[in-house]
Amino acid sequence: MLVLGVDPGSLTTGYGLVKKQDNRLIYVEGGKISFPHSRPFSERIHGIFCSLIEIINTYHPEEMSIEDVFFAKNVKSALKIGHARGAALVAAIQCSLKVFDYSPLQVKQSVVGYGRASKEQVRAMVKLILKLDTQLSLDTADALAIAICHHNWVRFD
Amino acid sequence: MLVLGVDPGSLTTGYGLVKKQDNRLIYVEGGKISFPHSRPFSERIHGIFCSLIEIINTYHPEEMSIEDVFFAKNVKSALKIGHARGAALVAAIQCSLKVFDYSPLQVKQSVVGYGRASKEQVRAMVKLILKLDTQLSLDTADALAIAICHHNWVRFD
Repeated sequence: MLVLGVDPGSLTTGYGLVKKQDNRLIYVEGGKISFPHSRPFSERIHGIFCSLIEIINTYHPEEMSIEDVFFAKNVKSALKIGHARGAALVAAIQCSLKVFDYSPLQVKQSVVGYGRASKEQVRAMVKLILKLDTQLSLDTADALAIAICHHNWVRFD
Repeated sequence: MLVLGVDPGSLTTGYGLVKKQDNRLIYVEGGKISFPHSRPFSERIHGIFCSLIEIINTYHPEEMSIEDVFFAKNVKSALKIGHARGAALVAAIQCSLKVFDYSPLQVKQSVVGYGRASKEQVRAMVKLILKLDTQLSLDTADALAIAICHHNWVRFD
């Protein structure tokens, strides 16, 4: 099964595609969606939607795994993350993907085994699990971790 | 020119279509988009997107006027409003509508002439301006007020 992990943000949205085959997790693709800050906010939000639609239509994942957000620095940043996450959800359901939410705690516990792991620790474990020796941005690593978390979670269903 | 006013909310999203003809504001349509609380959150957000797409494809407004949100009760409600507003922005830009944001203060000042007007005062003025003698929900009235605000604003451009 191919899972699309998404780490939504109004400035940068990470995405990562992870496949499970013969009980092994395989890296398929990963990257960042971002637009210049100079572009109007509404266009950047629409850009997240369009980019995810394109990724889904290219790789045909069956499920989307997305980080649930409960906390934000303040109301202003919560509003912005909400917009980005809303655009991602609309893209997923528009393409008939099932959506699964995981808390940051669940993602970290699933990948690192420790709910308070740093972003750098998450990245290191993602590279180990997926046998990647290339450079990986923190946003991409986070998205891959969210996809890995979903694979680990459904294994026990 | 036909303007679609939108008052986004994760439970209820108001919409209102107001046309300007011969310097008069004319009510075209208005209503509420809402889904049972029992439906998954992601599906309700996608439902806002689909409903707005349908409204746009039916009435062909040229511009969308939407309330800008700066405040929310707390981070949790800011996240929810953000999702709804994100879905509305994606729908508008997907249909090539220009998007204009107005603060609640601008909307109230434009319609009632007083930035701290109550929702009931806004509704009363909307009914007066659009010559409506039918019942009007507060959400629909808010959306119509946002459309009226845009008409009043561009007049002075």
